[in-house]
Amino acid sequence: MVPRYARADMTAIWSPESKYAIWFEIEAHATQALADLGVVPQSAAKALWDWWATKPTIDVAAIDAIEAVTKHDVIAFLTWVAEQVGDEARFMHQGMTSSDVLDTCLAVQLARAADILLADLDTLLETLKRRAEEHKYTPTIGRSHGIHAEPVTFGLKMAEAYAEFARNRDRLTAARADVATCAISGAVGTFANIDPRVEAHVADKLGLTVEPVSTQVIPRDRHAMFFATLGVVASSIERLSVEVRHLQRTEVLEAEEYFSPGQKGSSAMPHKRNPVLTENLTGLARMVRGYVTPALENVALWHERDISHSSVERYIGPDATITLDFALARLNGVMDKLVVYPARMQKNLDRMGGLVHSQRVLLALTQAGVSREDAYRLVQRNAMKVWESDGELSLLDLLKADDEVTAALPAEEIEARFDLDYHFKHVDTIFDRVFA
Amino acid sequence: MVPRYARADMTAIWSPESKYAIWFEIEAHATQALADLGVVPQSAAKALWDWWATKPTIDVAAIDAIEAVTKHDVIAFLTWVAEQVGDEARFMHQGMTSSDVLDTCLAVQLARAADILLADLDTLLETLKRRAEEHKYTPTIGRSHGIHAEPVTFGLKMAEAYAEFARNRDRLTAARADVATCAISGAVGTFANIDPRVEAHVADKLGLTVEPVSTQVIPRDRHAMFFATLGVVASSIERLSVEVRHLQRTEVLEAEEYFSPGQKGSSAMPHKRNPVLTENLTGLARMVRGYVTPALENVALWHERDISHSSVERYIGPDATITLDFALARLNGVMDKLVVYPARMQKNLDRMGGLVHSQRVLLALTQAGVSREDAYRLVQRNAMKVWESDGELSLLDLLKADDEVTAALPAEEIEARFDLDYHFKHVDTIFDRVFA
Amino acid sequence: MVPRYARADMTAIWSPESKYAIWFEIEAHATQALADLGVVPQSAAKALWDWWATKPTIDVAAIDAIEAVTKHDVIAFLTWVAEQVGDEARFMHQGMTSSDVLDTCLAVQLARAADILLADLDTLLETLKRRAEEHKYTPTIGRSHGIHAEPVTFGLKMAEAYAEFARNRDRLTAARADVATCAISGAVGTFANIDPRVEAHVADKLGLTVEPVSTQVIPRDRHAMFFATLGVVASSIERLSVEVRHLQRTEVLEAEEYFSPGQKGSSAMPHKRNPVLTENLTGLARMVRGYVTPALENVALWHERDISHSSVERYIGPDATITLDFALARLNGVMDKLVVYPARMQKNLDRMGGLVHSQRVLLALTQAGVSREDAYRLVQRNAMKVWESDGELSLLDLLKADDEVTAALPAEEIEARFDLDYHFKHVDTIFDRVFA
Amino acid sequence: MVPRYARADMTAIWSPESKYAIWFEIEAHATQALADLGVVPQSAAKALWDWWATKPTIDVAAIDAIEAVTKHDVIAFLTWVAEQVGDEARFMHQGMTSSDVLDTCLAVQLARAADILLADLDTLLETLKRRAEEHKYTPTIGRSHGIHAEPVTFGLKMAEAYAEFARNRDRLTAARADVATCAISGAVGTFANIDPRVEAHVADKLGLTVEPVSTQVIPRDRHAMFFATLGVVASSIERLSVEVRHLQRTEVLEAEEYFSPGQKGSSAMPHKRNPVLTENLTGLARMVRGYVTPALENVALWHERDISHSSVERYIGPDATITLDFALARLNGVMDKLVVYPARMQKNLDRMGGLVHSQRVLLALTQAGVSREDAYRLVQRNAMKVWESDGELSLLDLLKADDEVTAALPAEEIEARFDLDYHFKHVDTIFDRVFA
Repeated sequence: MVPRYARADMTAIWSPESKYAIWFEIEAHATQALADLGVVPQSAAKALWDWWATKPTIDVAAIDAIEAVTKHDVIAFLTWVAEQVGDEARFMHQGMTSSDVLDTCLAVQLARAADILLADLDTLLETLKRRAEEHKYTPTIGRSHGIHAEPVTFGLKMAEAYAEFARNRDRLTAARADVATCAISGAVGTFANIDPRVEAHVADKLGLTVEPVSTQVIPRDRHAMFFATLGVVASSIERLSVEVRHLQRTEVLEAEEYFSPGQKGSSAMPHKRNPVLTENLTGLARMVRGYVTPALENVALWHERDISHSSVERYIGPDATITLDFALARLNGVMDKLVVYPARMQKNLDRMGGLVHSQRVLLALTQAGVSREDAYRLVQRNAMKVWESDGELSLLDLLKADDEVTAALPAEEIEARFDLDYHFKHVDTIFDRVFA
Repeated sequence: MVPRYARADMTAIWSPESKYAIWFEIEAHATQALADLGVVPQSAAKALWDWWATKPTIDVAAIDAIEAVTKHDVIAFLTWVAEQVGDEARFMHQGMTSSDVLDTCLAVQLARAADILLADLDTLLETLKRRAEEHKYTPTIGRSHGIHAEPVTFGLKMAEAYAEFARNRDRLTAARADVATCAISGAVGTFANIDPRVEAHVADKLGLTVEPVSTQVIPRDRHAMFFATLGVVASSIERLSVEVRHLQRTEVLEAEEYFSPGQKGSSAMPHKRNPVLTENLTGLARMVRGYVTPALENVALWHERDISHSSVERYIGPDATITLDFALARLNGVMDKLVVYPARMQKNLDRMGGLVHSQRVLLALTQAGVSREDAYRLVQRNAMKVWESDGELSLLDLLKADDEVTAALPAEEIEARFDLDYHFKHVDTIFDRVFA
Repeated sequence: MVPRYARADMTAIWSPESKYAIWFEIEAHATQALADLGVVPQSAAKALWDWWATKPTIDVAAIDAIEAVTKHDVIAFLTWVAEQVGDEARFMHQGMTSSDVLDTCLAVQLARAADILLADLDTLLETLKRRAEEHKYTPTIGRSHGIHAEPVTFGLKMAEAYAEFARNRDRLTAARADVATCAISGAVGTFANIDPRVEAHVADKLGLTVEPVSTQVIPRDRHAMFFATLGVVASSIERLSVEVRHLQRTEVLEAEEYFSPGQKGSSAMPHKRNPVLTENLTGLARMVRGYVTPALENVALWHERDISHSSVERYIGPDATITLDFALARLNGVMDKLVVYPARMQKNLDRMGGLVHSQRVLLALTQAGVSREDAYRLVQRNAMKVWESDGELSLLDLLKADDEVTAALPAEEIEARFDLDYHFKHVDTIFDRVFA
Repeated sequence: MVPRYARADMTAIWSPESKYAIWFEIEAHATQALADLGVVPQSAAKALWDWWATKPTIDVAAIDAIEAVTKHDVIAFLTWVAEQVGDEARFMHQGMTSSDVLDTCLAVQLARAADILLADLDTLLETLKRRAEEHKYTPTIGRSHGIHAEPVTFGLKMAEAYAEFARNRDRLTAARADVATCAISGAVGTFANIDPRVEAHVADKLGLTVEPVSTQVIPRDRHAMFFATLGVVASSIERLSVEVRHLQRTEVLEAEEYFSPGQKGSSAMPHKRNPVLTENLTGLARMVRGYVTPALENVALWHERDISHSSVERYIGPDATITLDFALARLNGVMDKLVVYPARMQKNLDRMGGLVHSQRVLLALTQAGVSREDAYRLVQRNAMKVWESDGELSLLDLLKADDEVTAALPAEEIEARFDLDYHFKHVDTIFDRVFA
């Protein structure tokens, strides 16, 4: 975890205090279920919850000190709780194994992390929708291969981003469901020493579903799917960030990250305003993607379990979720405040001497009876001249001066193809599809 | 693509012939829609479908030869079709861009590939279910960390695998839906020169949904999610393969890959029967996982598109699906014919001198009023002796000879804890959860 | 392997014919060494080499047919050779294990592949050096964050690429040495049934070094290092490709991939000339990088070996080397023919109204006694005006009109800072470092 | 960074205090060089070094507070130093750019990190050598595919590990040299405002080499190679860890991680002693490998630089080196204290009824004139019986009772092949190769 790329709420989920609080709830709910089943005294559950009602401070250092001796984290925790609660605490953890606590806790943490990420996505979606509506009909050049193609609107760019993050929201919802399971099934998952109803009770109390079959641990394909999904979300963040970085290039400058007064772009070059936030997001996306493969490698545990997954999860549990939360919030900030320059967009649109209209002319020629090959050749030979003039020649002028072209298509017919609005007649259709 | 790890049906999806056939269908359906809209003559669509009805052989070499000149694959294809169909073919591809064809074709290919993979999963699930039922109550030692833990049944191992692959089936179904979209939206996705109803028609005919917003290309987050999902499935394959490899180890030998008569395990060591299929699957899983990151890196295309994704997809489209199809089929073969040795399982279960029952004694002691710490100490000191004897001492005998133990728990009470069936009382519950 | 991204020489290394030829040489050299040690008759070695001298065609199909029965590739090969050579062939493979043949063969293949890649790098380095010399003093704007910074020369860009690929050459040389080892050490690497002098003889004949300690297999950390190195080379290819893609953007257009007559950029937009080669290279780089992790996962084989690495190597051995060979050759082609537009570079340089000189003014002000903070403020307030004018205002004019500036620095002193050559005075130093 | 997987010395390299101390040294050395060149007053350099000689505490919070306003870390640092040193400090950073400081600092940090890792490797190598010598002739079964193959010694296993980590030491030495470069070359690497002799001076003082050509930043292929190399080292750690995990399996138990008194293996199962350290190392290896791809993705920065690499390096700089340092130290601890059970190794060797000698018999038969195919068949049919008896039958007895075998090879000749020492005659040769 890198503090500068971390926000408080997500970080808190992964604090020792949060972890131990969840552990306690799992143990106390389980004890209650055991008491209801008559396995342990009701007084045991009551003692635990009574103590908890005092809102005790969890003494992480004390638990750590015990763990230094026992070299076992759950035993250390249980020992510390027993010290606080007294004799009744000995009924805790009856028939359970450490992984029952650890894995169910991880499920709670990942579900909570997913909830924050889903809220981040909601905020981002709202922002993207607003910017899309705002620029629904702001013309800008569409580019394929970095080369001018045909006109789009800036709102369409935003709509695409919206649709992509809406898909990511659906994927994350599915991934959250995948990891939000509870296992209280004992040393090898057979419920040998604990009734399955305990698991059902704890699951219900914690908002989880019951793990149908566990093997001491919850199977790691669930977590693999979760982290793989975060990797996809991160890749979408990269996509939108790369778009902004391109738009802010000196020669393009159709949009800019907001640059606050007092901010210095460069210690050496005072004129610079750099897209540092989206560059940063590009790097953060690499990190979140980098956590996917370790998560996939975690699936193939040996037999009923080995513990190799645990160290990986100590890294990627916090690192992937904290980084992605930060990245989504930062991206939202970028998009929220993005300074858009419609005039520059128009200027760039115009700079190619009308080349963006070449396809319409091509179509008009074929509709006028010219073969596709000939039409292509006629348009291309004029387009190339415009291209080579760096936009100083006008495609419209050249076409009107090309006899072979005008033989097929009169000048006024050619002119009619150089119309920007023509390209935007279905923007509304697309917006309906995306936002309806 | 490595031929030895490829099966015919999946490979066929990625052949040039299949690709061109799909291209034709896209173009012809689009032409039909254009004709219905009055944009092109009905005769154009009719000419295409009439030719298609003759079941023409697609001359890949001829198309390649044209591409060598034009350096553009779709133009080469259209040129070749025009040569076959004649003049009416000039109405094809009206208002479309190459990516309309390429991306929609890829969607069809991935959807078909997913269908094969889903069928593979169904076959595997059936096999796993059968083996689970067969060995529902075959006792075997559960192992955590590679160390004997407590008894499970071989059927439970199979049930876990079943549940895991059933989850993978659900994930793949979602991933299939994610990629099965159709885009016929023109050079930058604005439908400038083509009516959205054409897209809707083609989508409908090809069993796809309409891409809400495309930008010349279908957004690559969809494909990233697809390949990430294949990576998860592959990791589950690795898990089950590693299980088999462990079970076949000389010292364990609780199960074996089927070894056909005439097969040679080693050119040097004639006695060897090696788990080569599951080792192979372990390697194949690495490959399918290796394709996830390139797919994630494909998401951040520049502006409305760049073509960097294309070469990646030429590799991983075939390689990931063909390899995973082969791997699923091979895994099914392994599990179908897996030779299971219940007698050896029982022998291994017994070899630890009853240590597997240690937890039950621990619980019994605490229930008899011994503190958890004391109970742990009492059991551990006897368990360690058994452990160090390599199973030659019996835990039951030692416990009965330990005065501090018998003071809390009479000998017959101790004996009652050494009962295997005790561990299996909830197997039925678990099976109900998994298979119901 | 994707045929369109494959060249003949590299592909040939991975053909069955090449593989079997190397197998034969290993076996025959080993037999010769065994004969020299008196273990087998000299006639056995002679029979093998005599047959080989007839330049026999290797019948891959026949060997495959035998393997279909034996399910063991080396045994199939030996059987087929024995059929050709006759009775003397029974002395082949004495004391050896299959991996002795397979792993040593892979070493030969990887070494040969490395030799081709090294030659590719040499060609590329020559091209880069030539373009560097050619444009040693062609001014162009240096960009950080995509934003104009200060002037560089196009030759410097080429020099950096040269230095980077020269480093890659060194790395590949080291990686080649790492994999070019020979192991003929028997079933578990103990030389139980074969004299280490056989290994030394074969190594010598094949241009390999002796593997100091093998365990049936050559340790896979060697191969991991090899493929990781290819991943680094691929990333450098991506870097240079991304540079070209940026330079070819419509708004930048300082350089262009060569566009051959007759080539079509787009089926819909005839004016387009797209950087498709470097986009393609960007994708190919993703693939070569994608093979790194499977190679790393191959290291941790079980005990003396398991065969999980083998399937991985069947993919990545050919795929990584063939793809990288193609990519290096394509990159060389791109750089060799790259169309460079110095006039456009100058135009872009000028378009920011002299902002590129801002730092020099800043330094001059501090040297004239202004505090760094004040100097920064003075320059920035004028620079920002230029920036916001989109280069229509001139920084020089504004500075000369700023009383606070001229109070510290007279107008002629300011003007002296607007000198392009000032930036290039150390180009020669850098070239000496890189090319000397 | 996960505190439980971090050691103090390596962690300290990445502290803000260390970073700022290195920044200061870079700036002060550069100022000295500038003073020697007459660009700034000698008093400026003197003022800096005089202040430094007072061993000032670096006030990280104060610098952070300035950065919160300027949003630029180097400017914040320079401002803070100026506050401490006074007016002379304004000559600092003359002609430099932030990256000159940041990248050279990273080079120092990575070089120091490499030095710790190299020392870790030296310690590990010493341990492995000692264990190798100790068990040079401790017989144990060699296993391929997890199946008994032929005898090796435990010392040979250690020798292989030694050779592998010695290779890793060489690779890391090369990777250290790759990243240990100094760049003080200004905003786009042209030395426009700073003399190259400044760079040479700073490089010399910090034990770095001069970067031949930089572009504001040091090229990231260097760092990519560094982190890729760490990924290879991590994979070797995984290999040895997996070996230990296998050896500690209940059924194998040929070696065990040291289990300290008071340690608890399981909260539920008191008898368990689990290989948790090597399982942990397996997970840590996944993490270090996971950092390779982000490092590779960092290479393709835009033009002269973008800052996307920076966030990645804030994670993987510390995380990869700290984790690997911890892992190497932990692995050394495991190997140092590993409890080896020669008696159990012998017992396992014997359990297959002599099957490990099958190849020798095969060879003897062929040498006695039996065809290879027949010899294979004869040995295999007896070997299979032993195999199926789970080692209760003896291969020697069966062979002596097989008339077809004894017809070719008399009983005493067969017996002579069942000799363990035969396999170890070249152990000394191998040790000479590895340790000489």
